[in-house]
Amino acid sequence: MTILDGKATAAQIRSELAQAVQQRKLDGKKIPHLAAILVGNDGGSVSYVTSKVSACDQIGFESTLIRYDASVQEDILLDKVRQLNEDKSIDGFIVQLPLPAHIDELKVTQAIDPKKDVDGFHPRNLGNMILNLPGFLPATPAGIMALIERNNIETEGKNCVIIGRSNIVGTPLSIMLGRNANPGNCTVTLAHSRTSNLKDICLNADILIAAIGQPNFVTADMVKPGAVIIDVGTTRVEDPSRERGWRLVGDVKFDEVAPKCSFISPVPGGVGPMTIASLMMNTLKAMELKGK
Amino acid sequence: MTILDGKATAAQIRSELAQAVQQRKLDGKKIPHLAAILVGNDGGSVSYVTSKVSACDQIGFESTLIRYDASVQEDILLDKVRQLNEDKSIDGFIVQLPLPAHIDELKVTQAIDPKKDVDGFHPRNLGNMILNLPGFLPATPAGIMALIERNNIETEGKNCVIIGRSNIVGTPLSIMLGRNANPGNCTVTLAHSRTSNLKDICLNADILIAAIGQPNFVTADMVKPGAVIIDVGTTRVEDPSRERGWRLVGDVKFDEVAPKCSFISPVPGGVGPMTIASLMMNTLKAMELKGK
Repeated sequence: MTILDGKATAAQIRSELAQAVQQRKLDGKKIPHLAAILVGNDGGSVSYVTSKVSACDQIGFESTLIRYDASVQEDILLDKVRQLNEDKSIDGFIVQLPLPAHIDELKVTQAIDPKKDVDGFHPRNLGNMILNLPGFLPATPAGIMALIERNNIETEGKNCVIIGRSNIVGTPLSIMLGRNANPGNCTVTLAHSRTSNLKDICLNADILIAAIGQPNFVTADMVKPGAVIIDVGTTRVEDPSRERGWRLVGDVKFDEVAPKCSFISPVPGGVGPMTIASLMMNTLKAMELKGK
Repeated sequence: MTILDGKATAAQIRSELAQAVQQRKLDGKKIPHLAAILVGNDGGSVSYVTSKVSACDQIGFESTLIRYDASVQEDILLDKVRQLNEDKSIDGFIVQLPLPAHIDELKVTQAIDPKKDVDGFHPRNLGNMILNLPGFLPATPAGIMALIERNNIETEGKNCVIIGRSNIVGTPLSIMLGRNANPGNCTVTLAHSRTSNLKDICLNADILIAAIGQPNFVTADMVKPGAVIIDVGTTRVEDPSRERGWRLVGDVKFDEVAPKCSFISPVPGGVGPMTIASLMMNTLKAMELKGK
């Protein structure tokens, strides 16, 4: 059994991106600049955005963090989005989700210029993904694809089961793994809360991806021996033994599943760092798509 | 075993649309106007476009057919698309595919204003589909969904296998059948040419949809007893016994599969008429989305 070390793979990608930044400097080209909008003080969101800004620092990207109180009006936020759309110094930007309930997330997502939408959440980028047109792939699925590719995991002709059909992970990932590409060419089954015979379906999976946010949902009896397991879940679970009072728990019961499989991504240190690496790759790509 | 009579279901939809047109006339509202661009003389394309124009006539929609020789330059075609985008009298339009090899289909598809893209091929509409935002669903998958819905076929929690991952049928249909809606909530497996154990996968399908354009590909030994079978294939096969010299053949070996299943759509008279009905529904919707 091999651990899919997302932390190490992401570090490798960051180092490649840092080299690309150095080269851009030598060539007198613009340095990529990522902006992030953070609304409120949700612990998870603050921590994700902090990691993104810190990844920019490590790579040598410029970054700007814009913070609003949780009570910010939707109009104010939309105005800021439009301003960032116009700002030539910003190459890509994200609005950290989730947003407070009084703000329409889809409205905000759609207001972002698709050419700066480095999270890949805009409908135009999702449509480009289906048609294999140039654009931004959603960061988490793209990070999972990179994790698979850089660990030389064979996907062609494999049965892949994805549990969870969210707009930002399960659904786009099902398309990316199923299409005619490498990695890709899997026979993908997208399972979800209404799936009636989930265990049988999972037992058929050569590659099993859990993205539902339910701690320890995937147990050993659901896993085919030798399968590849990718765990996208990151739920904060109370843990008085930790100083901060919680720990991140994945969707897969790691201890019992790990001995059964060929590859497994841990939580933390698996998909999480790859999501951030993939956001950084998208930011560099934003400049390249513009021909800068 | 029940035949899914697409011809009858489409006639029902046309009659509802004709009533809607009558009501619009009474209300002094604009009558929907569909334009179609046809390039060349391919027999299949000519016949599809003719059926679409004739459906408009039956319903009371206005229609305009624009024809070009197969040698038309891409620029000429793109200019016409832009002109139709601007033309306020046209509510929706299509460019019949396939186009001759010297024309970039994706470039043409992307040039169409998403608000007039009643075929639902534009990346913006495909992205809207993933996010469940208002827009146009691709006509063939939407027609299949309507055929399922109007024949009261239960989909929730069912295993659905789609063979064929095309951008215009298999891939969007996999999303529509898998999402949280009714019809929908299927556990969808999208199979294709690289699928390694297709027969086993098909035998698991409560709903089996074939969309690959290979005559008689699905045989009785691939079908679970009592399954719902939907045949999207329409290949012209030589047939000297017919006056025109050919007949349309589906992807399913109808004679041997039909006795095994609960519902089956025939070719012709199954999905084909539903695609046209769905294009007509999209054309009416184009006006409604504009608030006209």
